Amino acid sequence: MGDDVLDSFKVVFHIDNKERWKMVLGNVKNLLNEVDSSDIEIEVLANGNSVGEYDNRISENENIKLMKELSKKKVRLVACNNSLNSLKLSKEDLLDFVEIVPAGVLELIKRQNEGYAYIKP
Amino acid sequence: MGDDVLDSFKVVFHIDNKERWKMVLGNVKNLLNEVDSSDIEIEVLANGNSVGEYDNRISENENIKLMKELSKKKVRLVACNNSLNSLKLSKEDLLDFVEIVPAGVLELIKRQNEGYAYIKP
Amino acid sequence: MGDDVLDSFKVVFHIDNKERWKMVLGNVKNLLNEVDSSDIEIEVLANGNSVGEYDNRISENENIKLMKELSKKKVRLVACNNSLNSLKLSKEDLLDFVEIVPAGVLELIKRQNEGYAYIKP
Repeated sequence: MGDDVLDSFKVVFHIDNKERWKMVLGNVKNLLNEVDSSDIEIEVLANGNSVGEYDNRISENENIKLMKELSKKKVRLVACNNSLNSLKLSKEDLLDFVEIVPAGVLELIKRQNEGYAYIKP
Repeated sequence: MGDDVLDSFKVVFHIDNKERWKMVLGNVKNLLNEVDSSDIEIEVLANGNSVGEYDNRISENENIKLMKELSKKKVRLVACNNSLNSLKLSKEDLLDFVEIVPAGVLELIKRQNEGYAYIKP
Repeated sequence: MGDDVLDSFKVVFHIDNKERWKMVLGNVKNLLNEVDSSDIEIEVLANGNSVGEYDNRISENENIKLMKELSKKKVRLVACNNSLNSLKLSKEDLLDFVEIVPAGVLELIKRQNEGYAYIKP
């Protein structure tokens, strides 16, 4: 049905401030209450100091619990490699579901070029 | 004239922090000084704690005065229902021009899919 | 090659808070480490109090040094005239590479209509 096309969504959430994780992840959770995860592609692109929340050595908190839950629902949690380097974090230090891209801002441009909506909570 | 097409605009302003109302509403006002309200569709989508400013029980302030003025110029002032629920606000508590959508982030995606520009002041 | 088309990008960075200059300019610098400046159009659109950083009477700081460097790489540094007026700044007060547009938010809409990605660091 034509409606299936209209009801298929793509979105990239941008976070670059670690204080915003609660808001970003709450936004994603609310979105998945409205749209079936098979009808939407959701990416969370983290750069700046926000990538520190991906560190697998920090104690599990509400944000990390929610990340784990969301990653099981096809939400892609992505880190900017420049930002990881700034915080001296490497792939092995990160939660295992985290993907790395070379430059977060280039990822944001590419996704928008592919028709992803952009949201900066 | 072809120019009429080029000079027709659509934009959604996103606010999720109540401290940003002055900036958002000032942005909208500046925009309407440049573009005739018949040539533009403007939506202000509020989620997070920013929806508290729509409460009709708080004293009129500069933000609310400006919201009233802008709503008369076809600017749509919209609230996320998830955020209203978090603040225990219902439809009856809101300024009468406020529209409600089930999920603010889904509204932001739909609008961008419809060709609206996105601005996060 | 077809890839040349895919690897040609346009992006507008939005800044409306002077505290964010370091992040915005770092983002642009990182981007130019990934993409050749001839393959990308980068605009930095400043409104709100962020336009104060364009004032040629303040002492050169790291942000200004980086602006100068980036302006030589075709990055367009733009100021909203409404915001300049609020800070009582005129064209003569600004660093010589700064361009002025009448309304920053209208510029953001026009650029997105032209296919620019939007990033708000």
